[in-house]
Amino acid sequence: MYSSVAGCYDAFQDAMTRTATNEESVARARGRRVPTSTVSGVPVNALYGPADLEGVDLDSTLGSPGQPPYTRGIHAEMYRTRGWTMRQFSGFGTAKDTNARFRYLLDHGQTGLSVAFHLPTLMGVDSDHPMSEGEVGKCGVAIDSLQDMETLFKGIPLDRISTSMTTNAPAPILWAMYLAVAEKQGVDWRRLSGTIQNDLLKEYIAQKTYIFPPRPSMSMIVDTFEFAARRVPRWNTISISGYHIREAGATALQELAFTLYDGIEYVQWARRRGLEVDAFAPRLSFFFNAHNDLFEEVAKYRAARKVWHRVMRERFGAADPRSMRLRFHAQTAGCSLTAQQPHNNIVRTAIQALAAVLGGTQSLHTNSLDETLALPTEHAARVALQTQQILAEETGVTRMADPLGGSYYLERLTLDMEEGCWDYFRRLDDMGGMVAAIEQGFPQREIQDAAYTYQKAIETNEKVIVGVNDFQIRDETPIDILTIDDSAAERQKAALLALRERRDAGRVETARATLADAARSGANIMEPVLDCVRAYATLGEICDTLRDVHGVYEEPAF
Amino acid sequence: MYSSVAGCYDAFQDAMTRTATNEESVARARGRRVPTSTVSGVPVNALYGPADLEGVDLDSTLGSPGQPPYTRGIHAEMYRTRGWTMRQFSGFGTAKDTNARFRYLLDHGQTGLSVAFHLPTLMGVDSDHPMSEGEVGKCGVAIDSLQDMETLFKGIPLDRISTSMTTNAPAPILWAMYLAVAEKQGVDWRRLSGTIQNDLLKEYIAQKTYIFPPRPSMSMIVDTFEFAARRVPRWNTISISGYHIREAGATALQELAFTLYDGIEYVQWARRRGLEVDAFAPRLSFFFNAHNDLFEEVAKYRAARKVWHRVMRERFGAADPRSMRLRFHAQTAGCSLTAQQPHNNIVRTAIQALAAVLGGTQSLHTNSLDETLALPTEHAARVALQTQQILAEETGVTRMADPLGGSYYLERLTLDMEEGCWDYFRRLDDMGGMVAAIEQGFPQREIQDAAYTYQKAIETNEKVIVGVNDFQIRDETPIDILTIDDSAAERQKAALLALRERRDAGRVETARATLADAARSGANIMEPVLDCVRAYATLGEICDTLRDVHGVYEEPAF
Repeated sequence: MYSSVAGCYDAFQDAMTRTATNEESVARARGRRVPTSTVSGVPVNALYGPADLEGVDLDSTLGSPGQPPYTRGIHAEMYRTRGWTMRQFSGFGTAKDTNARFRYLLDHGQTGLSVAFHLPTLMGVDSDHPMSEGEVGKCGVAIDSLQDMETLFKGIPLDRISTSMTTNAPAPILWAMYLAVAEKQGVDWRRLSGTIQNDLLKEYIAQKTYIFPPRPSMSMIVDTFEFAARRVPRWNTISISGYHIREAGATALQELAFTLYDGIEYVQWARRRGLEVDAFAPRLSFFFNAHNDLFEEVAKYRAARKVWHRVMRERFGAADPRSMRLRFHAQTAGCSLTAQQPHNNIVRTAIQALAAVLGGTQSLHTNSLDETLALPTEHAARVALQTQQILAEETGVTRMADPLGGSYYLERLTLDMEEGCWDYFRRLDDMGGMVAAIEQGFPQREIQDAAYTYQKAIETNEKVIVGVNDFQIRDETPIDILTIDDSAAERQKAALLALRERRDAGRVETARATLADAARSGANIMEPVLDCVRAYATLGEICDTLRDVHGVYEEPAF
Repeated sequence: MYSSVAGCYDAFQDAMTRTATNEESVARARGRRVPTSTVSGVPVNALYGPADLEGVDLDSTLGSPGQPPYTRGIHAEMYRTRGWTMRQFSGFGTAKDTNARFRYLLDHGQTGLSVAFHLPTLMGVDSDHPMSEGEVGKCGVAIDSLQDMETLFKGIPLDRISTSMTTNAPAPILWAMYLAVAEKQGVDWRRLSGTIQNDLLKEYIAQKTYIFPPRPSMSMIVDTFEFAARRVPRWNTISISGYHIREAGATALQELAFTLYDGIEYVQWARRRGLEVDAFAPRLSFFFNAHNDLFEEVAKYRAARKVWHRVMRERFGAADPRSMRLRFHAQTAGCSLTAQQPHNNIVRTAIQALAAVLGGTQSLHTNSLDETLALPTEHAARVALQTQQILAEETGVTRMADPLGGSYYLERLTLDMEEGCWDYFRRLDDMGGMVAAIEQGFPQREIQDAAYTYQKAIETNEKVIVGVNDFQIRDETPIDILTIDDSAAERQKAALLALRERRDAGRVETARATLADAARSGANIMEPVLDCVRAYATLGEICDTLRDVHGVYEEPAF
């Protein structure tokens, strides 16, 4: 970079003149009061000690790891005997491109796959749809049909890997494609493991990538529960997700409470279908954010396990311990990363990942340093993965379950988080459940208010984001980022056209008609969807069939 | 970096072929047992709970922060009211070069200075000495005389900054130069704050950059205690350092026990000189390593405060609370960083820095990602500093004292660490103290054994260092590093030659003769050293005068 000390100091002088306001930054930092509340705005004392836990029966509130109420973790020895799955979310370009990335990540120590689909797939349209213009393969991999799914997993034996697929409204279709790939690989569905996100409630609440209205969506989700219980017993049929709720600006408590209550809502709908709770509840899984506030995050995960255990036992009368054991995936907080000084994101991600591990996560995605700028480069993706390897191998935090257990502060936070959760549950019960609450705009408004408060704290410099509202550098040297050209889109569209000409059009039409009948009659759609997929009906076509039956959702103004 | 997806995946394919052994790495990682001992080899259970603290009176063992025994911190509200000093160790080239870097760091939010001297200065020779060939300005700044020290602090008012100087055998001389700069700036010595490392015991034990034999070294150190007590009351006259003991391969416990016992030795020598303990003990400070093992490190800092309190109160009868309050600086573990995949060092440093903060450090240096390869570039130095800013501003760990306090695991570790410390103290007492123990080679052998055990654990892959003995990448792209040419050395030598011609040679000779007399008679050398410095005698000349009196130390074979 610099060939001499003199050259180096010329650069320093330049940097000094580029730094507009650093003297003021330092003065501000020195004068600034340390915030006395968490990232979520919860007030915090200057000290916690035994008095903060007076009257608390810690033995019963904590239990032992692997035992109810699972506060300290779902396995007795936690990572000593079961490491978390290092699962980096990735995908872009065509299925062929992403297949290469998957094989690269598996070779570099990743222990599970996590597919990012491009926006057209998430919205249930094909790559040649007008809405897909400029989006094909950009933020995820383009999957239009079973043919693409076959390519995506080429050379990856599905019985030897677990795969997470981030898909919601079209989840039954993409899952069916995965099941069809397994058929073609000769892999028994009973040996498949993985997860479909398949959580529409958080879409209505926060992320807004829905297609159908809430009630038919709930019905399709229950279809997957029912189908998995009979045919794909090791599959996680849903990943009930707080991640996006948090990214939309929720507090840690809102993330926790709304996510767990979404879980309650799914269980209720499944029971209304007549499913026994222990037949499907063991396959429910959760997905939380790992945000900046180390102790608040760990408290959130611990409270989540404890509350879910009680909900399943007391509210739903579950008897199978697996129904009461909350398993979760965590992803570090994308919204916490900065475009400014992107190497600082390695630090943020490391601390956030530590929170997830100290909180007993089963699986983890660590964001890449450049994710606010573009899809990750190879180098950035590797640093993110190795962040997890360093936590696992070098820091000593994996040697025992719940190493923070007993901390006065953490235990108080966990109890408070739990209490706040029950409060929200009471309010949601009073509204008639989560679908009703969403229809009234309740969780949406709560999150908006929290996001506004947080944004205001940043604008007034009450909360500091290093490099954003303080400690800025003017005219930084940009880092190298990954750019994706349009050749992937052209290749994808050509392949799709060829598929449409090659396949048996009559078989496609018959399968779509059968699906439409099932959807109209309220029957489970999984078998008809599988038949559409096997006939190489495209994702857009299958979704259109369901759109014709259910209509599309438009959020009312609240 | 890549202009298309295709180009990108070509690069991935390349990377895949470069990765020699990753499939085996992953297989090994999956099959590997999680180590059941700390980084220091201390066995760890799979779970800690209330039973692990049975019979322990936590109230009295912990106390409150700011109150004896200071286990939970030396201030009541810790970082709420007193942030740690972000003190990045830096220096290279000439004094002018380093002055620019200091001003850059101060502008970017650093809150204290820390001077790295080049090796010739540390060894007490001038830049034109044959031993200095190839070393001038390379690993630190070249300081030969008061003239250089004036340049080093040009434009930096010494009454508005605290300065740490990493110097040992020549500490009285460099401190005298700093005091002389203050005189020239018109700053009252009573307003100066800062630290000289000035800890020779750890040099004999671990780092081996000594000049004089142990006993005259001890005497010169006591001279600085005595002088500061009378004239520079806010100065930390010593930074009793475990850092280098740890870097030499000691365990966390050895680092703790030998460092605190070094402190005991200094106090004993000062008392033999007739100093009252409360006259100098408030100015003793400590310097610890922040290594990988998060909980072990936090336990070490907490045990250090508790043990030191008891030592000062019970063994030395200190009455001033400031004598019993252990203050420390921490530096992340240089020895833990890897030349391989250097961005991973950002992760290691972040977790290590977190340990120091959770352990209540008063001041912190975070290593740069490229420190195993070269002196840090501007970019690397900034990421390191911003790691501290992110911890302070974004993670919420500064809101309360000792947030881990009460954790069953941490409290057990802290108690065990304390117990191990008393054991070592008994052994060292039996040997007749630390100087005697060093003369017998005891701490040296203990550390060698620990270093051998650690090295063996890495060689057998029992302990994994990511990128070193597992998860390696073949043919990595090297990062840009800072290179320093020889022009700084030429400028430094020319300036030294000019100084020798310009100064009053007779005044130099008189001052050196007076110093020699003082050293021979056992009088305090600080005033004579100050007179040498004011006469622009060089560091090498002053050290030569003392070498003539005391001789030089050569370590016997043990």
